[in-house]
Amino acid sequence: MNVEFINPFLTSLLNVMSTMAQMELVPEKPSLKKSDVARGDVSGLIGMVSEQAKGSLSITFDAALAIATMKGMVGEGPDEVNEEITDLVGEITNMVTGGAKRMLSEKGIEFDMATPMVVSGKEHTIHHKAKGPVVIIPLGSEHGKAYIEFSFDD
Amino acid sequence: MNVEFINPFLTSLLNVMSTMAQMELVPEKPSLKKSDVARGDVSGLIGMVSEQAKGSLSITFDAALAIATMKGMVGEGPDEVNEEITDLVGEITNMVTGGAKRMLSEKGIEFDMATPMVVSGKEHTIHHKAKGPVVIIPLGSEHGKAYIEFSFDD
Repeated sequence: MNVEFINPFLTSLLNVMSTMAQMELVPEKPSLKKSDVARGDVSGLIGMVSEQAKGSLSITFDAALAIATMKGMVGEGPDEVNEEITDLVGEITNMVTGGAKRMLSEKGIEFDMATPMVVSGKEHTIHHKAKGPVVIIPLGSEHGKAYIEFSFDD
Repeated sequence: MNVEFINPFLTSLLNVMSTMAQMELVPEKPSLKKSDVARGDVSGLIGMVSEQAKGSLSITFDAALAIATMKGMVGEGPDEVNEEITDLVGEITNMVTGGAKRMLSEKGIEFDMATPMVVSGKEHTIHHKAKGPVVIIPLGSEHGKAYIEFSFDD
């Protein structure tokens, strides 16, 4: 189940970042997360529920990349992660999940989205506790790294 | 909507901690979270979805309290937050939400739960991005503090 979700979530993240903030992220090779390799400063998290699948998604940003994303959108940004940034990361998480939901719906995979949460805190780590493996895709940029991670109950 | 959810979630947390780990938490006054007052070291987060309501819940622990909870359950625990602890916090989050779900179902309020996520990282903060106010309930213990927070789209 998890592997066929990679392209919809990845494509949706690249679209949202490019369209909203003229931010071109460079995806690295997806992998199954064996240990906690993704550390970042601000993360958006969202739960997904359907009869077919339950799971969770997170998008983790280095602080500098999240701030640069806001600058790309509105021309200016704060010096550190504040409520404007957590609002933005929550909105990005919602939009990315919504975009993937539409793409997966065309394949007959439906789910409902919960409301997003955002975590701020230097170099935190997200642990997805669904039963399936965790797919992690690192993304590079000139402003720092991002990671999209998701997992579904098999 | 949020206020009537206080007792089911709080009662469920107190039950789970007392039953699983003989850990008696002392709840303080619930409040609507105006700023980011809850900082902790390990948090369980879960999304909730229904036709009536969408929302998110988090339970945040000081590291010492999470470790003491594991010691209360199995007689021993690690010196710092590791995967055993994040598994335990994910399981507690699942059980607390499941208990509240049963209590709310008796009142005709139904929701489905996504899979839990756990964040580890020193003194991180959770921001719930549902549209309604965030209810936060601090809880004291001899080992440190916990916070249960939730929010639903109105």
